[in-house]
Amino acid sequence: MTAHHAHNLQTAHQSGESTQNPRQAQEAAGWHKDHLSGSRPDIRVPVRRVHLTDGTDVILYDTSGPYTDPTQDTDVRSGLAPSRTNWIISRGDTEEYPGRALQPEDDGVKHTTPRGAVVRARPRSGEAETPVATGLDEVFPGRPRRPRRARRGAAVSQLAYARRGEITPEMEYVALREHRDPEFVREEIAAGRAVLPANVNHPETEPMIIGRNFLVKVNANIGNSAVVSSVEEEVEKMTWATRWGADTVMDLSTGRDIHTTREWVLRNSPVPIGTVPLYQALEKVDGRAEKLSWEVYRDTVIEQCEQGVDYMTVHAGVLLRHVPLTARRKTGIVSRGGSIMAAWCLAHHRESFLYTHFEELCGILRSYDVTFSLGDGLRPGSIADANDEAQFAELRTLGELTAVAKAHDVQTMVEGPGHVPMHKIKENVELQQEICEDAPFYTLGPLTTDIAPAYDHITSGIGAAMIGWWGTAMLCYVTPKEHLGLPNRDDVKTGVITYKIAAHAADLAKGHPGAREWDDALSDARFEFRWEDQFNLALDPDTARGFHDATLPAEPAKTAHFCSMCGPKFCSMKISRDITERFGGEEGASAEEIEAGMLEKSREFAAGGNRVYLPLAD
Amino acid sequence: MTAHHAHNLQTAHQSGESTQNPRQAQEAAGWHKDHLSGSRPDIRVPVRRVHLTDGTDVILYDTSGPYTDPTQDTDVRSGLAPSRTNWIISRGDTEEYPGRALQPEDDGVKHTTPRGAVVRARPRSGEAETPVATGLDEVFPGRPRRPRRARRGAAVSQLAYARRGEITPEMEYVALREHRDPEFVREEIAAGRAVLPANVNHPETEPMIIGRNFLVKVNANIGNSAVVSSVEEEVEKMTWATRWGADTVMDLSTGRDIHTTREWVLRNSPVPIGTVPLYQALEKVDGRAEKLSWEVYRDTVIEQCEQGVDYMTVHAGVLLRHVPLTARRKTGIVSRGGSIMAAWCLAHHRESFLYTHFEELCGILRSYDVTFSLGDGLRPGSIADANDEAQFAELRTLGELTAVAKAHDVQTMVEGPGHVPMHKIKENVELQQEICEDAPFYTLGPLTTDIAPAYDHITSGIGAAMIGWWGTAMLCYVTPKEHLGLPNRDDVKTGVITYKIAAHAADLAKGHPGAREWDDALSDARFEFRWEDQFNLALDPDTARGFHDATLPAEPAKTAHFCSMCGPKFCSMKISRDITERFGGEEGASAEEIEAGMLEKSREFAAGGNRVYLPLAD
Repeated sequence: MTAHHAHNLQTAHQSGESTQNPRQAQEAAGWHKDHLSGSRPDIRVPVRRVHLTDGTDVILYDTSGPYTDPTQDTDVRSGLAPSRTNWIISRGDTEEYPGRALQPEDDGVKHTTPRGAVVRARPRSGEAETPVATGLDEVFPGRPRRPRRARRGAAVSQLAYARRGEITPEMEYVALREHRDPEFVREEIAAGRAVLPANVNHPETEPMIIGRNFLVKVNANIGNSAVVSSVEEEVEKMTWATRWGADTVMDLSTGRDIHTTREWVLRNSPVPIGTVPLYQALEKVDGRAEKLSWEVYRDTVIEQCEQGVDYMTVHAGVLLRHVPLTARRKTGIVSRGGSIMAAWCLAHHRESFLYTHFEELCGILRSYDVTFSLGDGLRPGSIADANDEAQFAELRTLGELTAVAKAHDVQTMVEGPGHVPMHKIKENVELQQEICEDAPFYTLGPLTTDIAPAYDHITSGIGAAMIGWWGTAMLCYVTPKEHLGLPNRDDVKTGVITYKIAAHAADLAKGHPGAREWDDALSDARFEFRWEDQFNLALDPDTARGFHDATLPAEPAKTAHFCSMCGPKFCSMKISRDITERFGGEEGASAEEIEAGMLEKSREFAAGGNRVYLPLAD
Repeated sequence: MTAHHAHNLQTAHQSGESTQNPRQAQEAAGWHKDHLSGSRPDIRVPVRRVHLTDGTDVILYDTSGPYTDPTQDTDVRSGLAPSRTNWIISRGDTEEYPGRALQPEDDGVKHTTPRGAVVRARPRSGEAETPVATGLDEVFPGRPRRPRRARRGAAVSQLAYARRGEITPEMEYVALREHRDPEFVREEIAAGRAVLPANVNHPETEPMIIGRNFLVKVNANIGNSAVVSSVEEEVEKMTWATRWGADTVMDLSTGRDIHTTREWVLRNSPVPIGTVPLYQALEKVDGRAEKLSWEVYRDTVIEQCEQGVDYMTVHAGVLLRHVPLTARRKTGIVSRGGSIMAAWCLAHHRESFLYTHFEELCGILRSYDVTFSLGDGLRPGSIADANDEAQFAELRTLGELTAVAKAHDVQTMVEGPGHVPMHKIKENVELQQEICEDAPFYTLGPLTTDIAPAYDHITSGIGAAMIGWWGTAMLCYVTPKEHLGLPNRDDVKTGVITYKIAAHAADLAKGHPGAREWDDALSDARFEFRWEDQFNLALDPDTARGFHDATLPAEPAKTAHFCSMCGPKFCSMKISRDITERFGGEEGASAEEIEAGMLEKSREFAAGGNRVYLPLAD
């Protein structure tokens, strides 16, 4: 990926010609990247401002980062501007330090690779992909930077600040982003009902908040594996996922190049990055779970804290005594982290080092403001296993750990299932909220049936919308490739779009302030045959426009007062508009007045030639 | 479409080589078409029997008709065998009669086209489609047949038989199909909680039942329009939709060739066919709603009854007094039928002829056993309009009409919305069930947000699953082209698969007997790395296999004990299987016994080389 490619990202959404500059191209496509201003000049919250043909604007939440901002130059080889650095430094509670020395095994290589040497990525899979420029198979070339951490073990977390009554620039930023009061944001964080993942070593991030009283968020997983994928594909997937609305990205890479991949992703990511440090730790011990130790794990966590990972999945709730509870399951343990820890517990017949060292782990995370995502290692992997004793036993342990983490001022969210039939979904949210003191719930789906591999974005999109409505704060996407393979670029887009639908449907059902404005604007455009406005307001304008054009390709069709379903002769929307014009014009008219006017209107209707359909020339 | 093409349909699902005969090809693909036997030799209920590699079979519901039966010859130019004819004749309550003479305007042509002359279809859209043989643009060439109707106006409906305590062959057939007792089927029909749409003039149909105490059903809409599509495309879409699981098909054709298209579809359809007669009636009056009359409408209904339409949408609940209630809506009236009737009411300032002649209509429908689908002409077309007074006023009228229809022994279901946010869905089912005496509810989606044109199969699949769980009996699919254009072959498949997911998720949530067996069989296969079994059990085996092969194309990968997500070195499923083998083996072992055995097992684990991951050679 090169600067040129980043430029492509900028304009991917735009229908303008290549001779236009990016701003012109955006305007031609009916929108532009705008910013909301805060109380100080360096608080600039990005929004997508859609220009409607009726002269009004609709402002939409925007996760796409500086890549869609024509006023900014982006170059993936330099990384994004560290826009939060001044906020972090000015708090005066962190300091730079030399940091941990990079080890060859950080990238999962068995031979010695000195820092700066080229580490070759795996060959790309045979699958056709949108071509991306190569050249990322090397150590990130951007500015060298020393890591930063809390002075003297202080808590530098947004939770600690919120509890002290302090509204940070990050909190004000998300308040603007969510159309909420900054004090409300602070209260929600202080209460532990929301987290604001923002590692002091990831100053490139645009602050966002995860909590049930805010917009429901979507996470997209990326990551190479031992089988396929490469560094540049993962960076491309990250920018692509955020382009379509991913609020956070988890880098779940395994195999080689883990450290290098993550560095490229972090330095170029405008959204918080999550990881599962256990995956990298396992690579460092040659994939042998029983060889894991607290020391290897701790070292890996510090490595990732120094790089800037914003939240970490920690499967500390998988206890030795829980493992036998999974023995009679249909699909046992399906969480990779859960099964690693189960194997370790079995091999050593000791309690999990994640559990026994949990307080020490809290001490590390709060020094960088890394947020816990307490992993559900025993989540059900099939409908048959949903809501079973293994799952809820672990949840109770996660409740204990949530209290410990919060006592250490570490921001904490809790992960949830998985595969759950619809009638068992609500119990998951209610129990988690009760047991985990309202800590944000972060669920994978859940998938509502097992019978549709290749369509698990849909089986899980159903469950995601419902669990979002009932209080889940963030939804981890599932792509069509779930259970079958690694997602490519198209799968990432499909997964993100499906989950943005689920999240927005949940926002509507929760009555989130302002959520319905988007639907209303699009429905108004639909009713008034403003086709271009419909496209520009759509979650995926490109595909909506493409589908329309496939049936009615000519440009005039986009202003036609009919659609391809009914054709030009008769259109139900047109009749409705007639009715609205006839009866709806007088604001405040009572039902009786309307009723009384009907006969007269009916006569007008006939006198006007009974124009219930549109002549072709209209 | 030719006989050869029908053969393609047979094998579309099969991975066998073309030199195999169809049965061999099915067996090679891991399944075969089988039949369950009833109390008499002519009751043979089709099933899809999937052969698993562990030697067991899973039997799945099958809607694909004789096209997937290698023992039957099918030729779309002859039509399917009229397998119900003997049942109908032997009841002795119907008779053949000359029937209504075909009129030129039945096909929407303005010039005179004598029966048998070639009526050219519209040009195909420019969009690339799977090539189909042409030749359907003519009057259906199959055997001439005189229509059949009740003797002396008797009620020949399954409802009438059920009320008399009679279990018809059709009822026994659906009992076998649903794994229910025939008497239970009769009771549900007699109570009006279920309908069995089966026009005496559609003897080709394989009986199926729609009711909340049976499997949730899926309808697929097809139909040309004035803008695009042709006869052969519609027949192809019907066979294609049922191939993927559509339980009924609605032919919503408008424009020309309506009668001819419907004849081809009916004579070749193994599933009940629904229509909206108002659409054809409107064509007969040049698309001018105000020119409609009871006489034109009644004639059209009789035309369609004689052809064999199994259920008809009738928008008799759109009353004059309801129309002003829509005036302040965001999107007015979006139902095509609803807006036609609203326009008629306004133009004449009289009550709808569908309402004033409803009892006469009942008399016609019960003479053919055509089922009412009482249309929701005032359904909401946007989130803003959900559950408003216009919608519920019409629903109350539909409740009145349901009672009238059932008093005339006419089977009746009731249609529902539309666009509804999640928190307002349940009220729709509860009100409909209360107001309409538990008549089956048949809903379009509902769409849970308006913001995602091009993805409305997903916005609505979410709502469909939920409303199905809460009691809706049949779900009308929505394709990705909703609001944008007419669905092509791929869109039809995507719509059907999405809705089969929603329906099955609802069956699971309702605890429908046997529903979970399918999930369990697939999850067992997944846990045991039986990849071929996973594919063969999948709702869409082709796509599941294709996605897997895109990442791990080699044949050995299909028997590999790992998947592409984790790679060969570490696999969570393998660890789980180890745990199951270690702790789950002894049936009936208590939790204490399991606990007690853990230390020992742990030692065995270590002694066995800590094999928590699989060597590459495994």
